Amino acid sequence: MHRPLVVQKFGGSSVANADRIRRVARRIARERSAGSDLVIVVSAMGDTTDELLTLAHAITDEPDARELDMLLATGEHQSATLVSMALHALGVDAISLTGPQAGITTDGRYGRARIANVEPRRIRAEIERGNVVIVAGFQGQSAADADRAEITTLGRGGSDTTAVALAAALRADRCQIFTDVRGIYTADPRLVPAARQLPVIGYEEMLELAHQGAQVMQVRAVELGWVNDVVIEVLSSFEDAPGTLIREDPFVEQRNKVRGLAHDRNVAKVTLVDVPDRPGVARAVFEPLAEAGINVDMIVQNVGHGGATDMSFTVPRAELGKAKKVLESLVRELGARELTTDASVAKVSIVGAGLHNAPGYAARMFGALADAGVNIEMISTSEVRITCMIAEDELSTALAALHGAFELTRPDPVDVTATGLSAG
Amino acid sequence: MHRPLVVQKFGGSSVANADRIRRVARRIARERSAGSDLVIVVSAMGDTTDELLTLAHAITDEPDARELDMLLATGEHQSATLVSMALHALGVDAISLTGPQAGITTDGRYGRARIANVEPRRIRAEIERGNVVIVAGFQGQSAADADRAEITTLGRGGSDTTAVALAAALRADRCQIFTDVRGIYTADPRLVPAARQLPVIGYEEMLELAHQGAQVMQVRAVELGWVNDVVIEVLSSFEDAPGTLIREDPFVEQRNKVRGLAHDRNVAKVTLVDVPDRPGVARAVFEPLAEAGINVDMIVQNVGHGGATDMSFTVPRAELGKAKKVLESLVRELGARELTTDASVAKVSIVGAGLHNAPGYAARMFGALADAGVNIEMISTSEVRITCMIAEDELSTALAALHGAFELTRPDPVDVTATGLSAG
Repeated sequence: MHRPLVVQKFGGSSVANADRIRRVARRIARERSAGSDLVIVVSAMGDTTDELLTLAHAITDEPDARELDMLLATGEHQSATLVSMALHALGVDAISLTGPQAGITTDGRYGRARIANVEPRRIRAEIERGNVVIVAGFQGQSAADADRAEITTLGRGGSDTTAVALAAALRADRCQIFTDVRGIYTADPRLVPAARQLPVIGYEEMLELAHQGAQVMQVRAVELGWVNDVVIEVLSSFEDAPGTLIREDPFVEQRNKVRGLAHDRNVAKVTLVDVPDRPGVARAVFEPLAEAGINVDMIVQNVGHGGATDMSFTVPRAELGKAKKVLESLVRELGARELTTDASVAKVSIVGAGLHNAPGYAARMFGALADAGVNIEMISTSEVRITCMIAEDELSTALAALHGAFELTRPDPVDVTATGLSAG
Repeated sequence: MHRPLVVQKFGGSSVANADRIRRVARRIARERSAGSDLVIVVSAMGDTTDELLTLAHAITDEPDARELDMLLATGEHQSATLVSMALHALGVDAISLTGPQAGITTDGRYGRARIANVEPRRIRAEIERGNVVIVAGFQGQSAADADRAEITTLGRGGSDTTAVALAAALRADRCQIFTDVRGIYTADPRLVPAARQLPVIGYEEMLELAHQGAQVMQVRAVELGWVNDVVIEVLSSFEDAPGTLIREDPFVEQRNKVRGLAHDRNVAKVTLVDVPDRPGVARAVFEPLAEAGINVDMIVQNVGHGGATDMSFTVPRAELGKAKKVLESLVRELGARELTTDASVAKVSIVGAGLHNAPGYAARMFGALADAGVNIEMISTSEVRITCMIAEDELSTALAALHGAFELTRPDPVDVTATGLSAG
């Protein structure tokens, strides 16, 4: 008989203290007694990562990236051992493994490493021995050779990626991401009370939602799931309720094409006013920003007027100060008139597979915002998304208007339920 | 020109918070700019180890030994990275290494591993690159083969052992143990105000002091230093003052033979009253205690009277409960009359090389205690030590009496100063 292999990931809030760790252990024990082999991926307890960052910054303004990774990785080591101990206390055989012990190697980039390879020999051996295997998320080592091996971390939310990568390498039957929400919604339920939980969502749509600020799952984890055909279930660690499946969506043609709304407040607008309209200007602006490690999004350049043009783009709000510093020295050099910035903006997006090929969605979006009295400051589009930048204080109004306009409360025509879980 | 290689170990109180870590870094930077190559061993910050133990016990009464070691080892990983960051902030090149990265392998016994081998290839390479190398103390891995490698810890104070083992493997010129005291004293200065700091002490004497409760250094570290001829300096991390050298003592014959006093409150007395005086009884008592992992010390069996005898011994105070549980079931089986225990006792010892061969010391000790009105409950001796068990509340009186009787305030006839440091 095939014993199902399930990968489950529990985030920091699910293991924030001893009580919650025991609760997670009980949930794992239930799944175990139902007959599954289990690989559990854990994040650091609660605010541990932030506390360690604070400690590092109390020592130096610019902690070395290598040392910081080694420091942060301890958070997941700790939670992994504690979950293992809690399982022992329930009589469940378990063993915790560091990222390196779990056979996870990365490309070696500190703070934002990508998983290069997973060699789950040790995990398989421990499963064979009857152990539930607890893997410290968020990390891997830079090389298999112990003499050069460094501890590297995968960046914020990296434990999601650990879980999906392990599910792919182990050909797991299921990959469950336990979070503090019940699944993926048509919009943030804290802002849109009518928001509805989706039973299933396609990878591409999920990617856009994640890209556009829906912080349920790390973007890279979704990409990895897509490439490896891993069906991911997002569900609550605090209640027993079906979550949302992220998978190739065979019903996409029968659906309302807008699957959900995303929004992002972590954004600031930068405008270079009256930049001379000549070749090489864009490079002169964006190369120094890239060199400073600033992520630029939503670049909009208006049609030139009288040899000059306005160039606007967005940056993460926390990086606005750094971006201003880089750009202020450029303004004169470029011959621009001035630099303006606005940190009280937000992005709102409609997301759905095939939006690009279906005419009328953009017009319907702009119309709904206009009817609600919301001014659009910038627009950008992708294959599966239309995004508008608006004033931050109009975000709730905008979301409610769009949720209504695209009838997102209406149930899916075909509800794919959790029985679809084992499909690839 | 020979560049001196110095191993320095900083304990938990020296790196208890960001301020102290920066202070330690400044001290290291000074030594560095004086032209030494440096390998730094650090303990976990302040009470980190105890906090992690508390956390583990909040989850389960009996944490698995393997998981506990993996959990505790994170404390030293953290402090090592933070010291490294603090050095970077001072412009000093530095890199932190875990025990495994530093090439430390152990015999694999969780919670009390012994260092089996040190292969300092990576440390040497980092020194060549110009780095100060910060090694996480207290730990090593159980095997060089990554597939079986487990993280093991060396037990309380294990960072001392890490430092001495590295000094031996690297043939370091100096091994300095920074603590919260200025060195080794003739007695605990908190209890005996007249206590005097010793400029030098022999390995064997230091071992007895450590065994008998002087908690300045881990016993195993002293043993390792002795076997490998590592000259160890114990000194304060909070002030610039010469410490105490632990080394083969060439002046031992010229000295007052009693070098110092030790005391230990962490002790409880157990007596089996009227045990039948027949072969096999001792084994019947001590085998079950050993199986329960209880350390027994100072065994005294009185001369038999009427076919029965009293058998007394000491156990660590924290293990008295467990010892009683083991023994209570034995009392009837053995035919003993009763089991009595006393947790309000203490041991006081005089320590000095050659004590055993020099008659009169025992008599002088017993006489001094009698003159001070202190009753002796048990006596044991070794090559370099005479120990008496007394009531705990008479400890200060006993120490003062012995310090006077053996003229311990008198300076050494030949003061070996820090210039002897580089000798082997």
